[in-house]
Amino acid sequence: MLFMVEMTVRIPQSLDPQVAEKIKADEKAYSQQLQREGKWRHLWRVAGLYANVSIFDVKDADELHALLTALPLYPYMEMKVTALAQHGSAIAQN
Amino acid sequence: MLFMVEMTVRIPQSLDPQVAEKIKADEKAYSQQLQREGKWRHLWRVAGLYANVSIFDVKDADELHALLTALPLYPYMEMKVTALAQHGSAIAQN
Amino acid sequence: MLFMVEMTVRIPQSLDPQVAEKIKADEKAYSQQLQREGKWRHLWRVAGLYANVSIFDVKDADELHALLTALPLYPYMEMKVTALAQHGSAIAQN
Amino acid sequence: MLFMVEMTVRIPQSLDPQVAEKIKADEKAYSQQLQREGKWRHLWRVAGLYANVSIFDVKDADELHALLTALPLYPYMEMKVTALAQHGSAIAQN
Amino acid sequence: MLFMVEMTVRIPQSLDPQVAEKIKADEKAYSQQLQREGKWRHLWRVAGLYANVSIFDVKDADELHALLTALPLYPYMEMKVTALAQHGSAIAQN
Amino acid sequence: MLFMVEMTVRIPQSLDPQVAEKIKADEKAYSQQLQREGKWRHLWRVAGLYANVSIFDVKDADELHALLTALPLYPYMEMKVTALAQHGSAIAQN
Amino acid sequence: MLFMVEMTVRIPQSLDPQVAEKIKADEKAYSQQLQREGKWRHLWRVAGLYANVSIFDVKDADELHALLTALPLYPYMEMKVTALAQHGSAIAQN
Amino acid sequence: MLFMVEMTVRIPQSLDPQVAEKIKADEKAYSQQLQREGKWRHLWRVAGLYANVSIFDVKDADELHALLTALPLYPYMEMKVTALAQHGSAIAQN
Amino acid sequence: MLFMVEMTVRIPQSLDPQVAEKIKADEKAYSQQLQREGKWRHLWRVAGLYANVSIFDVKDADELHALLTALPLYPYMEMKVTALAQHGSAIAQN
Amino acid sequence: MLFMVEMTVRIPQSLDPQVAEKIKADEKAYSQQLQREGKWRHLWRVAGLYANVSIFDVKDADELHALLTALPLYPYMEMKVTALAQHGSAIAQN
Repeated sequence: MLFMVEMTVRIPQSLDPQVAEKIKADEKAYSQQLQREGKWRHLWRVAGLYANVSIFDVKDADELHALLTALPLYPYMEMKVTALAQHGSAIAQN
Repeated sequence: MLFMVEMTVRIPQSLDPQVAEKIKADEKAYSQQLQREGKWRHLWRVAGLYANVSIFDVKDADELHALLTALPLYPYMEMKVTALAQHGSAIAQN
Repeated sequence: MLFMVEMTVRIPQSLDPQVAEKIKADEKAYSQQLQREGKWRHLWRVAGLYANVSIFDVKDADELHALLTALPLYPYMEMKVTALAQHGSAIAQN
Repeated sequence: MLFMVEMTVRIPQSLDPQVAEKIKADEKAYSQQLQREGKWRHLWRVAGLYANVSIFDVKDADELHALLTALPLYPYMEMKVTALAQHGSAIAQN
Repeated sequence: MLFMVEMTVRIPQSLDPQVAEKIKADEKAYSQQLQREGKWRHLWRVAGLYANVSIFDVKDADELHALLTALPLYPYMEMKVTALAQHGSAIAQN
Repeated sequence: MLFMVEMTVRIPQSLDPQVAEKIKADEKAYSQQLQREGKWRHLWRVAGLYANVSIFDVKDADELHALLTALPLYPYMEMKVTALAQHGSAIAQN
Repeated sequence: MLFMVEMTVRIPQSLDPQVAEKIKADEKAYSQQLQREGKWRHLWRVAGLYANVSIFDVKDADELHALLTALPLYPYMEMKVTALAQHGSAIAQN
Repeated sequence: MLFMVEMTVRIPQSLDPQVAEKIKADEKAYSQQLQREGKWRHLWRVAGLYANVSIFDVKDADELHALLTALPLYPYMEMKVTALAQHGSAIAQN
Repeated sequence: MLFMVEMTVRIPQSLDPQVAEKIKADEKAYSQQLQREGKWRHLWRVAGLYANVSIFDVKDADELHALLTALPLYPYMEMKVTALAQHGSAIAQN
Repeated sequence: MLFMVEMTVRIPQSLDPQVAEKIKADEKAYSQQLQREGKWRHLWRVAGLYANVSIFDVKDADELHALLTALPLYPYMEMKVTALAQHGSAIAQN
């Protein structure tokens, strides 16, 4: 099942820069692993913002929740989740 | 270049049902043609709503504007447009 | 999988009262059938409003979309859909 | 009487992690006690968010207020409260 | 139990003025009956607006819903409902 | 003249708990004095929130401003002020 | 006592142009009478909009309500009312 | 040219009280100087809030910007600026 | 003096298509005349929307108001006006 | 391709004033370099606010994102990005 997730990152100025770099590196590695597994199907940057638009392909809302809350940047992210269905005019299957 | 377009359809109750059906059929044909041409790259239904999330792959904002305003349902749609850039952690190119 | 759906009904004053009564009766019958089948698990009235809070138990977003768009009152409803996951502190399973 | 309560948790980064863990454990125990007593009738996780949707079954607004303000996480929560009535199409009694 | 109800009236220009006057007269009579019964405890005009702030004293949300939906102006009103509890610093009982 | 004032309290976590308790005690005493003087005519708790709905009976906006800014909790409160007029259907005088 | 009133006019396209012109002329005459009486102390146009910012000097909210609801354009106006007090740094009295 | 400026002050709790008092005194002196010069034509307190509504009479937006950013409280203020034009029904000139 | 004006056009479905075409043609001619006179300095389309972002160079708010309200499409437009000042880092003069 | 970017700056009070001055000087130099290169085509101050309206002329969203995130003030800015297309009534080319 597909979900659109819109993530906005707000890292507080008080966070130690080295800690921040470590978290971002972990985030990137974890994100790329999920992409290779096909669970994080698309990842786009919102131009100009520290934000992304993502499409997740998961079994259900429980798997989505587990994946998202395991993101290293999760404590610094604001999330918006939208459940997606097959569109009747789409030529591809979800 | 990629754009996310979020479309919400509001067909007024006063529209003649036959006219409405004709517009929807035209919309579907036009939408599928753009999908086959690779310009309307993704089309997902927002679950429960008469709305979709779409990804367009176009040369620039002018081409996007031309494609969207040519939609048969355009006069009945509310649009939200977001410009997308390559995400540094994405394993695929936009 | 569970979804919370918040529905607000706005029947236009121009709708023929007899037509409106027929649609509402159909809505009630369809809603009760889905409740008996266990797909519309909960249905509560928002006090003072022509609105409800509902919990649906469906296979996925596609089934939810099919059920909701088949509601006789669907053309007159505004919908808000929220995907629900198992809560770690809940003593019941979703 | 039923109330829907939507809770969003925002634990400040400055809170000592051990203190935070203690508060969360207390919250879980208290929440499960209220669930077993039938006062916290439903508890669902909003997928992707540190938030929940809950249904409380209490005598009145005073009891609801007492229960909610006694939550160990209460100082870190944003609440939205909606009073629920019996829906005329529901096959179950509230 | 007390509820604050904020009502905003929007009578469409298309409504027959005589019908509108009749509905308003019925509304006034019904409102004053509920005030005399002690169920509509307070009724204040929001200065400058076709809107009011009201306090209802009812058994529960079901009674509130029944009273409000019986208002002659109900189809033309937008409602906001807030459940009220006893305030610890109030010198009067709710 | 009557004003509805909606107050939401946000005490920062950084405030010394003893100082906070002292401020709350002062607030309660001051609030009850104003209630006894008839200036703070009603005080209700918004169920579930650290917020209240209040009705003030004052000479004018200047007196209202003086009373509110003298509240011990004022620096931690968000206020919404609404001027109230006599409602034509009210059986009581403001 | 002073109130700031922000008025936005929305005349429906369906209103007969001659009727509209008559209403606007009445509005202008009534508005200028109130200005000469000192009750409508200031009247400014919001640049680019069919809207104004006004300052009323009235006895209380009841008088304000009576004046505003007597405006010929009142049924086509959206109002926002703000009660004003004497500012401690103002060199003029309200 | 006239501008309406709505200012809301938010002084952080962390600001040294003596520094805060000094800034407020400077603000008052500067504000009164501008009032005497006729540039800050009106200054009203929003009842109940640490906020004001002001009317500035300046040559253009550049002068307005220079005056506002020179306010001692400027770093702690949220501003909303509205350009005002002559109203056709006003009996006074702007 | 410069103003940014954001215009959104909403032509009602009920407007006669021939009348609409005439209004749009008049709008285009008038807009191009103002551009040639240097008063409508920039005009950009918001991609995907029936909306534009414009920069006007006028003497003051009165001239802006006169120009905008003379637009043939004015009755069908929603406007947002922002006064612009010289930016300290700009290499060009406004 | 053109983008409108609306930037609002929020420098935290806790930032060292000397560091802040250095960042602002770097921002000015970088901004003027981009203006001279023709990439930052327009830069206007929003009157009264620590905010600007800018027009960028870039190859695509990727270049825009690279330019914006390289701004020295970027960590302290809130951005709103709008893609612009050629307007059919504009006498100039984008």
